[in-house]
Amino acid sequence: MTSNGVSREIRLAARPVGAPKETDFELAECPIPSPVEGEVLVRNVYMSVDPYMRARMSEVKSYAPSFRVGEAMTGGAVGQVVESNSPLLERGDWVNSLFGWREYYVADGSSLMKIDPELAPVSTALGVLGLTGLTAYFGLFEIGQPKGGETVFVSAASGAVGSVVGQLAKISNCRAVGSAGSKEKVRYALEVGFDEAFNYKEVAVADALDRTCPNGIDIYFENVGGDHFDAALPRMRTFGRIALCGLISQYNDRELRPGPNIVPALVNRLTIRGFIISDHFDRIPDFLRDMGQWVREGKVRYTETVVDGIENAPKAFMDLFEGENLGKMLVKLGPDPSRGES
Amino acid sequence: MTSNGVSREIRLAARPVGAPKETDFELAECPIPSPVEGEVLVRNVYMSVDPYMRARMSEVKSYAPSFRVGEAMTGGAVGQVVESNSPLLERGDWVNSLFGWREYYVADGSSLMKIDPELAPVSTALGVLGLTGLTAYFGLFEIGQPKGGETVFVSAASGAVGSVVGQLAKISNCRAVGSAGSKEKVRYALEVGFDEAFNYKEVAVADALDRTCPNGIDIYFENVGGDHFDAALPRMRTFGRIALCGLISQYNDRELRPGPNIVPALVNRLTIRGFIISDHFDRIPDFLRDMGQWVREGKVRYTETVVDGIENAPKAFMDLFEGENLGKMLVKLGPDPSRGES
Repeated sequence: MTSNGVSREIRLAARPVGAPKETDFELAECPIPSPVEGEVLVRNVYMSVDPYMRARMSEVKSYAPSFRVGEAMTGGAVGQVVESNSPLLERGDWVNSLFGWREYYVADGSSLMKIDPELAPVSTALGVLGLTGLTAYFGLFEIGQPKGGETVFVSAASGAVGSVVGQLAKISNCRAVGSAGSKEKVRYALEVGFDEAFNYKEVAVADALDRTCPNGIDIYFENVGGDHFDAALPRMRTFGRIALCGLISQYNDRELRPGPNIVPALVNRLTIRGFIISDHFDRIPDFLRDMGQWVREGKVRYTETVVDGIENAPKAFMDLFEGENLGKMLVKLGPDPSRGES
Repeated sequence: MTSNGVSREIRLAARPVGAPKETDFELAECPIPSPVEGEVLVRNVYMSVDPYMRARMSEVKSYAPSFRVGEAMTGGAVGQVVESNSPLLERGDWVNSLFGWREYYVADGSSLMKIDPELAPVSTALGVLGLTGLTAYFGLFEIGQPKGGETVFVSAASGAVGSVVGQLAKISNCRAVGSAGSKEKVRYALEVGFDEAFNYKEVAVADALDRTCPNGIDIYFENVGGDHFDAALPRMRTFGRIALCGLISQYNDRELRPGPNIVPALVNRLTIRGFIISDHFDRIPDFLRDMGQWVREGKVRYTETVVDGIENAPKAFMDLFEGENLGKMLVKLGPDPSRGES
């Protein structure tokens, strides 16, 4: 493999107004770059699409800097070193990076996290053993502080984060209740271990919570916002905790949607805490130790929805907002030698 | 002093709909009770009226049990023992209790907290050295976690709790910004040490915050709710903390007022925590040590608005919602021998 040839990448063509559309993205070609001394050339095999990227497409203040119009977007990606000028990595090594949305990249060998393809499928480094798993782990354990017997409500219970939260709640001897947006997703949530799950497209969230959490909610792991947040807040039990992880139903809003009446947060002495996992990378060692063990033991299961080809990455991303994914949504950018593909 | 004679008390006559009115209260007379073995008879000298009592007048779920229609209301009161059948207390001792809204009561001697009239005026046991001071102390230090240089915004900055919070913020080397509802109150807030204060009846809270907190708010100590909460939430800085202590502007609402858009709580990784001081009495020893010292050193100043006569207690309570008080609102039920009155 040499550095000749063409790499494709997805650039931000325009800042979306409301829901992103195809014309907000541009598929571009550029020469595969050459690694200089200390650098490696990596071929990406999987890239992650995540709801948080929506905020980065806008210019509004957010927790991560905005993507720049005309430049390639970024995000989590797992790839294989195809050429190394770094003593730290060899050709064939697998690495995790934030250089997603492109087929090839060069980077300093010291800036990449090596992953072991023997421990788990490499794609899990973007999911259950990556930032989405860490998000579930930190949000439930650090903010939720689950105690046995408590009721944990998880929105987007069939998603990459939510499906793991439900399983961690069960590991904590809690009751896990989930909401999801289709019959199939409800079935999946129940399969991975939720005690109850409901389809919020068929029943009002408030009514479903009255039925599934008759004594109220101790911990709410929020991925959705909107009607879900409005319904959950007044149903929290005394000293309840809300981990605000995502508000996907609101990311494409053009107007600021009001929230629920705040009085229950005082009366019931609630703690509501927003978090962004990039603030908490210090928890990665604990996470990898615990989650690695639970995945190996089969206590935490995961599912991936894999879309082929970088040209389909914008659609995969947009499909997140339509709820087209079960578990972690990934885009596969090329053959995966760890599965014998070439 | 014998137990003959008449005591007056305020009973809940009807559950208020919206703002409480005179006819929701009833002034009643009853015989002064006699203390049996182990009990003392106490003559109340000061009683506290507090916004939280509004919730107890309703039947809706709240953090304290509802008052019962036809029965005397309760709340903080400071009084003097006039007859003792308890080895724990002597005639003339001062005690703090929750038997407010009445002129006399009997109680087991072991159930009352004795206070030392030499340390500070006895009325402060209902204010800066009582639950209102503890509320300011716990909310700012435990939930706010102030760090030097941070900006602390306090609503109801001239009130019993807010005026103390501002002074504790200054002791913590923070910048203190307050809102209050009149020119006189703004002046008072500045007098006790707030760096800036504005009159929210003359300027929109959002505009005033843009001017007084141009770099945002690190800690918001919330006593008011409504427009204040709506304006403060999107102006919180990254990792900001909101101590939800009171929502006085919303207590008389007949309809559930929507809250602000919740997205900033996620993007800025805020922590919003409601609290009720009765959950945190374990902090009283620390509080009395610290606050007692600050009051003695003149680092924390306080003001009382004192209304005379139990017959005026309902009006004093209702005036809280009109913002008629500066500092702690008290009702004086009779002469105060600690001030040489008889």
